[in-house]
Amino acid sequence: MQERARVLLEALPYIQRFHGKILVIKLGGDLVENRELRDSICQDVVLLNYVGMKPVLVHGGGSEITQEMRKAGKKPKFVGGLRVTDEETMEILYKSLVGKINKELVLGISKHGGRAMGISGIDGGLIQAKKLKRGRADLGLVGEVERIDPAIIHYLISTDYIPVITPLGVDAKGRSLNLNADIVAAELAASMRAEKLILLTNVPGVLRKPKDERSLISHLSVKQAKKLIKSGTITEGMIPKVEACIKAVQGGVIRTHIIDGTAPHALLLELLTESGIGTMIERGS
Amino acid sequence: MQERARVLLEALPYIQRFHGKILVIKLGGDLVENRELRDSICQDVVLLNYVGMKPVLVHGGGSEITQEMRKAGKKPKFVGGLRVTDEETMEILYKSLVGKINKELVLGISKHGGRAMGISGIDGGLIQAKKLKRGRADLGLVGEVERIDPAIIHYLISTDYIPVITPLGVDAKGRSLNLNADIVAAELAASMRAEKLILLTNVPGVLRKPKDERSLISHLSVKQAKKLIKSGTITEGMIPKVEACIKAVQGGVIRTHIIDGTAPHALLLELLTESGIGTMIERGS
Amino acid sequence: MQERARVLLEALPYIQRFHGKILVIKLGGDLVENRELRDSICQDVVLLNYVGMKPVLVHGGGSEITQEMRKAGKKPKFVGGLRVTDEETMEILYKSLVGKINKELVLGISKHGGRAMGISGIDGGLIQAKKLKRGRADLGLVGEVERIDPAIIHYLISTDYIPVITPLGVDAKGRSLNLNADIVAAELAASMRAEKLILLTNVPGVLRKPKDERSLISHLSVKQAKKLIKSGTITEGMIPKVEACIKAVQGGVIRTHIIDGTAPHALLLELLTESGIGTMIERGS
Amino acid sequence: MQERARVLLEALPYIQRFHGKILVIKLGGDLVENRELRDSICQDVVLLNYVGMKPVLVHGGGSEITQEMRKAGKKPKFVGGLRVTDEETMEILYKSLVGKINKELVLGISKHGGRAMGISGIDGGLIQAKKLKRGRADLGLVGEVERIDPAIIHYLISTDYIPVITPLGVDAKGRSLNLNADIVAAELAASMRAEKLILLTNVPGVLRKPKDERSLISHLSVKQAKKLIKSGTITEGMIPKVEACIKAVQGGVIRTHIIDGTAPHALLLELLTESGIGTMIERGS
Amino acid sequence: MQERARVLLEALPYIQRFHGKILVIKLGGDLVENRELRDSICQDVVLLNYVGMKPVLVHGGGSEITQEMRKAGKKPKFVGGLRVTDEETMEILYKSLVGKINKELVLGISKHGGRAMGISGIDGGLIQAKKLKRGRADLGLVGEVERIDPAIIHYLISTDYIPVITPLGVDAKGRSLNLNADIVAAELAASMRAEKLILLTNVPGVLRKPKDERSLISHLSVKQAKKLIKSGTITEGMIPKVEACIKAVQGGVIRTHIIDGTAPHALLLELLTESGIGTMIERGS
Amino acid sequence: MQERARVLLEALPYIQRFHGKILVIKLGGDLVENRELRDSICQDVVLLNYVGMKPVLVHGGGSEITQEMRKAGKKPKFVGGLRVTDEETMEILYKSLVGKINKELVLGISKHGGRAMGISGIDGGLIQAKKLKRGRADLGLVGEVERIDPAIIHYLISTDYIPVITPLGVDAKGRSLNLNADIVAAELAASMRAEKLILLTNVPGVLRKPKDERSLISHLSVKQAKKLIKSGTITEGMIPKVEACIKAVQGGVIRTHIIDGTAPHALLLELLTESGIGTMIERGS
Repeated sequence: MQERARVLLEALPYIQRFHGKILVIKLGGDLVENRELRDSICQDVVLLNYVGMKPVLVHGGGSEITQEMRKAGKKPKFVGGLRVTDEETMEILYKSLVGKINKELVLGISKHGGRAMGISGIDGGLIQAKKLKRGRADLGLVGEVERIDPAIIHYLISTDYIPVITPLGVDAKGRSLNLNADIVAAELAASMRAEKLILLTNVPGVLRKPKDERSLISHLSVKQAKKLIKSGTITEGMIPKVEACIKAVQGGVIRTHIIDGTAPHALLLELLTESGIGTMIERGS
Repeated sequence: MQERARVLLEALPYIQRFHGKILVIKLGGDLVENRELRDSICQDVVLLNYVGMKPVLVHGGGSEITQEMRKAGKKPKFVGGLRVTDEETMEILYKSLVGKINKELVLGISKHGGRAMGISGIDGGLIQAKKLKRGRADLGLVGEVERIDPAIIHYLISTDYIPVITPLGVDAKGRSLNLNADIVAAELAASMRAEKLILLTNVPGVLRKPKDERSLISHLSVKQAKKLIKSGTITEGMIPKVEACIKAVQGGVIRTHIIDGTAPHALLLELLTESGIGTMIERGS
Repeated sequence: MQERARVLLEALPYIQRFHGKILVIKLGGDLVENRELRDSICQDVVLLNYVGMKPVLVHGGGSEITQEMRKAGKKPKFVGGLRVTDEETMEILYKSLVGKINKELVLGISKHGGRAMGISGIDGGLIQAKKLKRGRADLGLVGEVERIDPAIIHYLISTDYIPVITPLGVDAKGRSLNLNADIVAAELAASMRAEKLILLTNVPGVLRKPKDERSLISHLSVKQAKKLIKSGTITEGMIPKVEACIKAVQGGVIRTHIIDGTAPHALLLELLTESGIGTMIERGS
Repeated sequence: MQERARVLLEALPYIQRFHGKILVIKLGGDLVENRELRDSICQDVVLLNYVGMKPVLVHGGGSEITQEMRKAGKKPKFVGGLRVTDEETMEILYKSLVGKINKELVLGISKHGGRAMGISGIDGGLIQAKKLKRGRADLGLVGEVERIDPAIIHYLISTDYIPVITPLGVDAKGRSLNLNADIVAAELAASMRAEKLILLTNVPGVLRKPKDERSLISHLSVKQAKKLIKSGTITEGMIPKVEACIKAVQGGVIRTHIIDGTAPHALLLELLTESGIGTMIERGS
Repeated sequence: MQERARVLLEALPYIQRFHGKILVIKLGGDLVENRELRDSICQDVVLLNYVGMKPVLVHGGGSEITQEMRKAGKKPKFVGGLRVTDEETMEILYKSLVGKINKELVLGISKHGGRAMGISGIDGGLIQAKKLKRGRADLGLVGEVERIDPAIIHYLISTDYIPVITPLGVDAKGRSLNLNADIVAAELAASMRAEKLILLTNVPGVLRKPKDERSLISHLSVKQAKKLIKSGTITEGMIPKVEACIKAVQGGVIRTHIIDGTAPHALLLELLTESGIGTMIERGS
Repeated sequence: MQERARVLLEALPYIQRFHGKILVIKLGGDLVENRELRDSICQDVVLLNYVGMKPVLVHGGGSEITQEMRKAGKKPKFVGGLRVTDEETMEILYKSLVGKINKELVLGISKHGGRAMGISGIDGGLIQAKKLKRGRADLGLVGEVERIDPAIIHYLISTDYIPVITPLGVDAKGRSLNLNADIVAAELAASMRAEKLILLTNVPGVLRKPKDERSLISHLSVKQAKKLIKSGTITEGMIPKVEACIKAVQGGVIRTHIIDGTAPHALLLELLTESGIGTMIERGS
């Protein structure tokens, strides 16, 4: 019995430190598609909310999108890691992201006693975007964030809702645009003056040697992170995540984390115990 | 020029009467699927909002659901007008209702300068539902409204958002349930003490003789409406709509309307001119 | 019927643009004395208020003042367009402006369903003034605005009252002072950060050739306006009006208008249709 | 010096008792027309306001009205103490009451450092009235109070304005009506749940023997007051004042007073010292 | 590591259940005098506050009072368990309770990062009391609670202060009165509509057989509790505690607890784990 | 009778000038220990509060502390006018200051109808302090103010409580520290942007010749005050008081006063009449 009291009391300093603080948490779509992981993450999020923190979730898309495109007879095409998006693809995105993944998270949080509110970037003009230009390639309806107006999100967290955000935006012409979820999370964290941005991925963090988990880098300054991108140590899929963290830090977020969301209760352990996990990127000296 | 001033000034008494009043407007899915109609209705809704009224939209599902079910190799099945809903169908419903129709309305309102917020009945615990029992038939995941908590909707309209609501609910076990959109609109109108419930359909209103538009009944008391259902004058698809109106009136809504949403700017004409259209059902003497 | 809907929808962009915006509208006393015009202007003002704008009226004095002075055996005397005001004249001003014209406007607005509140510049210390010096001439109790404290006006419009303001002020010694209504309207508009200042007169606007209505100048920058005063194109009675507009623009008001209040529903047409009338003066390039 | 401290401290219990309490004070027009009395009363009112009470003034009309009518060649006519009021008389009333007496009070309060706001019963729909029927006699535009909506008055006193109210009303047809100032004060006191109604007159209070000031009755229950009216002891001009007090008490006002406003600082002595003056009428045992 | 997550997640349902709920916790003076126990209880209280509960502390007096009386050459005297209190004893009480025990709790809470505010029953008129009559015995300055005005306490907890209350009261004559801390806690819990009243004592709870801890009664209805007092099973020192619980339950408190505050982290285990300890008294069937 | 009115009205300008203004009033402990003086001061404070001012009291310690130390067999020791404070002395301080003097003031204010709230510098983290260094001497638990967070005090005065503050502080390590009451009052006045700091002492003010009351200096600029300290004209016990005044003025307090609190109703006469007493220190030219 005393053991329980001890564990609870050891969490006290962390509960105090993050009391009332905004945590923007991005979940990869694969984590959401796994029912067990989703359930476990939702439970963690509800606990964090109940002990006084203000989590805001942003989710990505999963492998289902590709399947749906195949069903519709469309061949997924990527340019520089970005999914080329035509109108038909956009409809599939809406259905999968807004109509499925977002709602699974809302129901998951609700199941554990939290009050979630699903919102897409097009609702209430949350995310203004513009078409992304990438050299000559036409990526179609792919955009980048122009402006985020987080007033509604601030209201929701002030009344203890947990917002769940789908990273779609709308441009000045009223067109829907597909946005990178990591960047949306970073921009949102900056616009809300969040304490933390946490990217839940399916890898342990930034590795010095690919595939060697023991080479995990647990702490990076922005400067170091940029150098590692330049030197090629950080590669491929990890680059946009690290860049999102850099963007968030430069926008005023105190600390950013890339952690393994497949590890059981990774969020809880990161936030409520002294044993930080994954890679933390912060301003640095 | 003076003609314009005259038209505007003739609208003044209606603008005064409905100032700050809540109007729950239900749109059939077919109306939303028609891009031109949707656009015109959204424009009307934005104008009503700007002249001081508080519209709240509830939408139904369209023919697309049936198509999607067919694509997935499922045969739609109805019992007493209610779509039998298994888990796979529920996923299709989510995608079509939340991921497509709701967002098309949000974008349509946004296009005309309004600020819409799409919300499903499962977000923030808006609609508590329970599984519907209909004799021996098992309708699957079909439910009825148990309780609506409209606090978030009241907040949204107080800050001039236009809420767009998808009629899904969640039961005590956390299961999603498919709900009748007319009834959700009626219950919502009652719980919000709305001034009006307006059901936008694709028929002119309640007809004394089916298919004879000249036999339109423009005004019914609740008592008369019940009698016409009993006598068989009101039939089939119109019954649930009239029943929704009766439920709303009994819940305290002042006036309810069944009007033809395919008529251009039907909403505007109903609300801002003296020429009411369709059928109005109210308490009556 | 569709024609009506068209007219209403054409007003939508203007309703959106001026939503929640403050419009300071100055009415010459002659317009108020004409019962029909007064009634028509009040109706317009109530409509503008109901569609979301925030009108604030300032009225001038009419020919009645001169008549009352004659009755009292006093000969009106003007120096540089300003009425020399002794104590007896001040009593006549109070009675005509506060006791008659202001109340006629309050009743006119009330008749059309608006809620007006008549306030003079001396109530609640609204307008602090000081005695006007004009060379050697002693104008008596004529003053100029020193400071306006619009807190009570902001409160009134926030609760949807329409303030009706009589342009009298009080100086540090407690003496009542007669103020120029155009300037009071301009100063008030500047202190409230109004969107527009509209001077309703009995001429079509600024004319390039006096008495030739076809020579109306529909748009002027502040710079151009000053030049036209210097060059003598703008003369006599129009000079203080143009100067009031310049003062307002320099104080931060976006656009100012001099329009013909005797034209039926001039206010409505200016604000809710694309056909602007009269002369607009703005910052200019 | 200690004498001063003693006087101030003796006022403390009264300051405490009436802290935040609403005092509706009616001033006869004659008191206002006397510049010295007006000044002294305004000073008292400002002091009462500064030590935490909430005075609300209602003023009557003075002898000036009769003079102005004579000037206009009209013969004042009274039926049962009520001034027969045609349209021309109404215009004279407006000018004298709203345009002169009200503003003199506003300026008087302002002079002593208070913030007054003059409001007539027609502003903001403060007083709804209806035409008074008195047997067969047609009194013209004379009315009685139907409903008072004191919301704006409550707002004003909550922000430490001193409201100064002119007893005119407007009926459902938009006609202005002349009202009895004592009754307006009584109705206003009741609708605002005032602590006290104080009628400042030019007699010492209710006298047992007319003209014998030593026969002053210092305290009456409602029952006793009614009896004295019936028995004829209370006569003529005092009857409507005593009736106003009765109406106020029956409407929930704690205590009502008829006191001599021509006695120097009568208000202050009544409210801040133990020596009450005049006649007090209260519920009684 | 996973063990920690498990413990934290097991606390979630309790954190949810008591979120925003008021817990009135009474500490015996002996517990406060023991530095280690005080420290451990303060830590628990701070954790409960941080996870969203609203603890309000009431403390008793300890053995120090008796020592201080002896020092002052006074012999403590008790009548029916109540300390006979003369003026000199009252001064000792003030010094020990307000000047020592209350401040030790405030400092203890502050040490663990909570924000405590010490308030005695005489501050701000928190507790109105009257002299207690007990037959013929004159207990001196011993009182009973007449009325509690918890407005200031509600304000404090709404801004996340932890109030620490000393159970003294003041009577209508301005005399300080010594009050029973258990009863003050019970009355306060009732007046604040607390979720729980928790009496931290130095015994395990209500025992069926005195001194036999295995005879602990873990649950009692009010009816059963009264019966056990009548039958003599509950004796001496436990009677006022059980009576305080009964008073609280009858005043609307949901559940009341008598638990052993000397057991390490008893509060935490009672509130955040499923293993309730001590005796719970509630309305019962 | 008129004399009374005159005295009251002469107070009006002072009541207006200090309306809503914060007055920080420091009382020496000797004044509080004298029951009659305490009562008279409390009465004055309550009157000042009722006429709209915002008094905040800070009290010192009296001769009782020394007596209590002697009783405990401790010999008071002072270094540079500061009481050397060990842990035992600190406990005596707590008991005397918090447990006796503070509560006597709270009860005194309550007796005259005011609502007082006693707060020590350690409650709610009001005063952050740090150990005072004075050359080589170790003064023990004597501190100086590091930071005052007056939010709770602002709340209390906004709801018409009269705060009574005990000048103790807590340092970063959680140790209680003994603070100079004059300096605490000065720092509090500065942090609250008080209108006045008033030090109630037992001497007439700053004297040019010690013991010669006729040599009272009624007005000093900060510059002059510093010069008089340097030149030795201001000596011993008066130095910290004058320094506190200088600190307050430099922190933004408008005027500071050192007055004789033993003179009957000194506070009232200073604040509500034109005859200022004692020494006033202000910025000066």
